[in-house]
Amino acid sequence: MQVNGVALRPLRALPGRQGLEVIDQRLLPHRLQMRPLHSARDVFVAIREMWVRGAPLIGAVAAYGLALQAGRDASDTALRNTVHFLKGARPTAVNLAWALDRVLAPVLGSPEATRAEVAWREADALAEEDVAVNHAIGRHGLGLIEALAARKAAAGGGPVNVLTHCNAGWLATVDWGTATSPIYQAHAAGLPVHVWVDETRPRNQGASLTAWELGQAGVPHTVIADNAGGHLMQHGRVDLCIVGCDRVAANGDACNKIGTYLKALAARDNGVPFYVAMPTSTLDLAVADGVRDIPIEERSGREVTHLSGRTAAGEVVEVQVVPDGSPAANPGFDVTPARLVTAFITEHGLVAPEAAALRALMKPAG
Amino acid sequence: MQVNGVALRPLRALPGRQGLEVIDQRLLPHRLQMRPLHSARDVFVAIREMWVRGAPLIGAVAAYGLALQAGRDASDTALRNTVHFLKGARPTAVNLAWALDRVLAPVLGSPEATRAEVAWREADALAEEDVAVNHAIGRHGLGLIEALAARKAAAGGGPVNVLTHCNAGWLATVDWGTATSPIYQAHAAGLPVHVWVDETRPRNQGASLTAWELGQAGVPHTVIADNAGGHLMQHGRVDLCIVGCDRVAANGDACNKIGTYLKALAARDNGVPFYVAMPTSTLDLAVADGVRDIPIEERSGREVTHLSGRTAAGEVVEVQVVPDGSPAANPGFDVTPARLVTAFITEHGLVAPEAAALRALMKPAG
Repeated sequence: MQVNGVALRPLRALPGRQGLEVIDQRLLPHRLQMRPLHSARDVFVAIREMWVRGAPLIGAVAAYGLALQAGRDASDTALRNTVHFLKGARPTAVNLAWALDRVLAPVLGSPEATRAEVAWREADALAEEDVAVNHAIGRHGLGLIEALAARKAAAGGGPVNVLTHCNAGWLATVDWGTATSPIYQAHAAGLPVHVWVDETRPRNQGASLTAWELGQAGVPHTVIADNAGGHLMQHGRVDLCIVGCDRVAANGDACNKIGTYLKALAARDNGVPFYVAMPTSTLDLAVADGVRDIPIEERSGREVTHLSGRTAAGEVVEVQVVPDGSPAANPGFDVTPARLVTAFITEHGLVAPEAAALRALMKPAG
Repeated sequence: MQVNGVALRPLRALPGRQGLEVIDQRLLPHRLQMRPLHSARDVFVAIREMWVRGAPLIGAVAAYGLALQAGRDASDTALRNTVHFLKGARPTAVNLAWALDRVLAPVLGSPEATRAEVAWREADALAEEDVAVNHAIGRHGLGLIEALAARKAAAGGGPVNVLTHCNAGWLATVDWGTATSPIYQAHAAGLPVHVWVDETRPRNQGASLTAWELGQAGVPHTVIADNAGGHLMQHGRVDLCIVGCDRVAANGDACNKIGTYLKALAARDNGVPFYVAMPTSTLDLAVADGVRDIPIEERSGREVTHLSGRTAAGEVVEVQVVPDGSPAANPGFDVTPARLVTAFITEHGLVAPEAAALRALMKPAG
């Protein structure tokens, strides 16, 4: 996507395969800064500390992390250790493991002398595939927005109001985003679209990342507290919800940023369609029951008790918002039961939240 | 309740009926500071700007505001104008109008020379009644916690986990609080109780007020992002929800701080009982359908885009958390449909969320 008229992605390979450069997303929306990553250890820190985040993006960054390792020591042991190490950076998103396994297999199948080359090619391919997949998700989601726009135009007009939670935008992927891809494509097609952006406490990825992305792209949007979505749906002010996901189980239960489940409940209670944008790389058929079995990352309570913002003087500072001595809990994700999902928007089209339909997605074409 | 071992209320009359003193709740949890109010205009500002908030407390403070006016000009016109003026300070909580009407009637029925005296007596009586009502709510709610504690003890122990939203604590009332009154009484009775405190964006009344209250009282608690409650309920970590309310309609629909509805949906989806602590002064039989007809205050988007906290240096500063140019919407309340409420905890006991039961509450005893 473009920022100030310049094409930008949240990661790019540095010339000569010396490393990567990623947007340090902790600094947005107040500062846009790239940071270099030169080793698998750098990549681990960038994922763990959430310089980069978003299931598809951490998969792609991890793939390059393995390529960086292959350029230093491409032995089986070193590569396997690196994969194990990087998989531990974040526990919930399945794309991390998926991307590492995907790069590892052809690398291990190659002579050691060519492994770095193979790993870089695989990482590049994986990143470009992510762009294509997200573009396809956008194309399929665009149809939903077109249909709603036509219905609203017939009923007197007004924009299609989309509610989204967290950031499943281009910053969470290599480009386009998953949940935002239909929105960007609708906006580019001239359809009237307005986005309710959930703030997404405690890390505020909606307020700081999604709002920034949409603002840069000129898409009309309004930031709301996470608490507000139920009220808006109750009063007909949301036409559809589109969220991303970090792992989808075989039964269609969808793990995404904490709070997604509450919005899915409100959507169901008010007859608002609730779509989950899902690249098939986020589907984990090895997990039978998502609510029961997807591991939920418990993050530091400090993300709840403290937060960062910009003072009137332009300085970015961290402030404490709870009393001294009050502890906080911070589960990073929740799981929306399949019964609350209207459909998954995948690169292959809309897919019902049912085991058979999801299994069919993973069968080789033809 | 006690703060550092000293009994404290969020409002007290100044000696000689010269005015009131209220805790400036905007400064908590970082600073405990009383502020004097000397006129109805001061009271208006304190309510409008949320130095004081919480349905029962703004009713009591407004009652004293009318008494202050009666000490200056006790003519019918002046008093009626003051009532009209003060009712406009906040639109949603019905207690504000209820308290003003309740004081106005006997004042207008008295000779002008005695009206100030009558108004002060009525305001004092109303404040003391609030304390008694909240204590009774606590007594009735205590039974619910006792029953759960017994059940948990039989099943191997652990505290009763209560989830609450916003601040319906003693800071929201004259004393005890509504939703917190059962909790304080359970804690005092030695029952093991732990409170999940919803942060309650955008104004953070949970993180800044409820957590502070509970900490002062030594009640075990954990602050969570508003997004987390659904996940906790899904995994059996919440035994009951107790929230306050700002207005309850004749059909049992309950208006409370924005986000309450989302927690009620999650409670229903997971079989967690959802109680609304309601002094009968919060019941508004004039509103037939709460979801449709209770006016929802739309507050400034700045409460979403900016927030206050304490820096490491101990300074309280305001920071911006959204990108420049991103607008925000800020509905202050939402309405939980009666079908999601397990029961109201009133000063007269538990009451079903049904029109007939609520109407019966308002009939004179005998």
